[in-house]
Amino acid sequence: MTDLLASWAEGPAKSELTDFFDRATTPGSDGFIEPPDRVAAFDNDGTLWVEQPLPVQLDFIFRALGGAAQQDPTLASQDPYRAILGRDTSFFAAVGAQEPEAIRAIEEALARTWLGKTPEEFEAQVAEYMTQVKSDRFGVPYTELVYKPMLELFAALRAHEFRVFVCSGGGRDFMRVIAESAWDIPRENVIGTAPTYTYENGEIRRGGELLGGLALGPGKPEHIFATTGRMPAFAGGNADVDIEMLECAAFAMLLVHDDEEREVAYTKAAERSVEAAQQHGWTLVSMKNDWRTVFS
Amino acid sequence: MTDLLASWAEGPAKSELTDFFDRATTPGSDGFIEPPDRVAAFDNDGTLWVEQPLPVQLDFIFRALGGAAQQDPTLASQDPYRAILGRDTSFFAAVGAQEPEAIRAIEEALARTWLGKTPEEFEAQVAEYMTQVKSDRFGVPYTELVYKPMLELFAALRAHEFRVFVCSGGGRDFMRVIAESAWDIPRENVIGTAPTYTYENGEIRRGGELLGGLALGPGKPEHIFATTGRMPAFAGGNADVDIEMLECAAFAMLLVHDDEEREVAYTKAAERSVEAAQQHGWTLVSMKNDWRTVFS
Repeated sequence: MTDLLASWAEGPAKSELTDFFDRATTPGSDGFIEPPDRVAAFDNDGTLWVEQPLPVQLDFIFRALGGAAQQDPTLASQDPYRAILGRDTSFFAAVGAQEPEAIRAIEEALARTWLGKTPEEFEAQVAEYMTQVKSDRFGVPYTELVYKPMLELFAALRAHEFRVFVCSGGGRDFMRVIAESAWDIPRENVIGTAPTYTYENGEIRRGGELLGGLALGPGKPEHIFATTGRMPAFAGGNADVDIEMLECAAFAMLLVHDDEEREVAYTKAAERSVEAAQQHGWTLVSMKNDWRTVFS
Repeated sequence: MTDLLASWAEGPAKSELTDFFDRATTPGSDGFIEPPDRVAAFDNDGTLWVEQPLPVQLDFIFRALGGAAQQDPTLASQDPYRAILGRDTSFFAAVGAQEPEAIRAIEEALARTWLGKTPEEFEAQVAEYMTQVKSDRFGVPYTELVYKPMLELFAALRAHEFRVFVCSGGGRDFMRVIAESAWDIPRENVIGTAPTYTYENGEIRRGGELLGGLALGPGKPEHIFATTGRMPAFAGGNADVDIEMLECAAFAMLLVHDDEEREVAYTKAAERSVEAAQQHGWTLVSMKNDWRTVFS
């Protein structure tokens, strides 16, 4: 039999995954999941690809917002522009901690930056970014920094009749540009923070607000339910903002970034999620010990 | 070769559909559509099942709103409660014509009626309705009034690697209850008017607003784009509120209700769409002439 998880080292994480597949797909077993309920949802940044020193989408957004602030100096004194131009990490920590004022500032800036743009215009901007910008640490475009074991896990889930979704706090439409080529996931299975759209004169254009708020923390199950009509049966994440999504799932896995040599070792913004994993018995995946290979 | 459209009579509609499939799936042909772009979107009421004398979901909603107005007499003087209790069709015509005040009144009532309900509570209410209520005209539950030729068309689209979505002005979560059993469509492929949701204390509950407005008229391409990240390549509808969705598609079909004997003959709220079909060369499907069988 082919090992669907060939890049995963033998150990507790791999065993728990294969046990889960056995139970989920064996009618009559304790953990059997009816095929329609087989929805799997994954965070993106830090779960599917490298998020250090800065999540790719934030880098993309900060470049755009920095550009906007240079064109309109009145913005430079307001957050998030002020924080971006001044590299003030306390503001981004406040976003990560979901402080309402910081969230509102970033929501407004996100929506305003691409107001009135067509999807084609936005896509062209993302595509240009993805080909031109390379990771400082690895020297390759970010799409080459997708974790191979996670792509194998996607394929294993599909082989067991799961539908795989990505649900990220980052921009949904940013991820959709790369979803099919980088993950082999159709665009409609990408969930995330997204603007309203307006259809007029035969064209779709970005509106000035976010639709349903940020897909972070409680926003993740909210967005997943809105898109799929279900809570996920399987969920994977790596950070505190994934806790609510993970606690909804029958099987939850938390990726731990402990591989200084092949990736980056850090625990920041994941302290609470590691505690929650221990408390709820979620599967902890150590990048160092559980993955034979990190990148394709 | 198996005829995937066996319930369709030989004639222009069937020919145009089979020609479309040939072109869409032949690499190098003029109308070739790349597999990722093969998104098909269908209206529900009047396109997939009987919508006369009243769309099923409106009947469901009106019963619920009528019940709410009986419990709270202060509502009885306001639209839409007033119109429902008094059977004032002019209000519903105003909704159909997308008059802002009527739309707002119905949006508010829709959101308020199920505020705070869990998905399970709402689903149980729909499931009860679907088993207990029968069509006056046909004497069977509405789920038996799905058009067989449309289910064949879904299967034919899937056989040609299309992903089939339903996009209705009616309630998304109402349709999701029947999507898998009645249409063989996963819940996540159902798009429609829907409330916000709030995740708190491990539970999802309905919020008090609509997310992205009604999926009618321009709201259809807006909701389809939000869900799929694309404009549909194929679209099917039957009414004026479908025009914007149909005009986005490479292939559009408009179902004409002209079969008094087997269904209901009417042109109301479809006058502009028939004109648009003639103007744009959309495929007109006559229920009377193009369908050998109407129901399964």
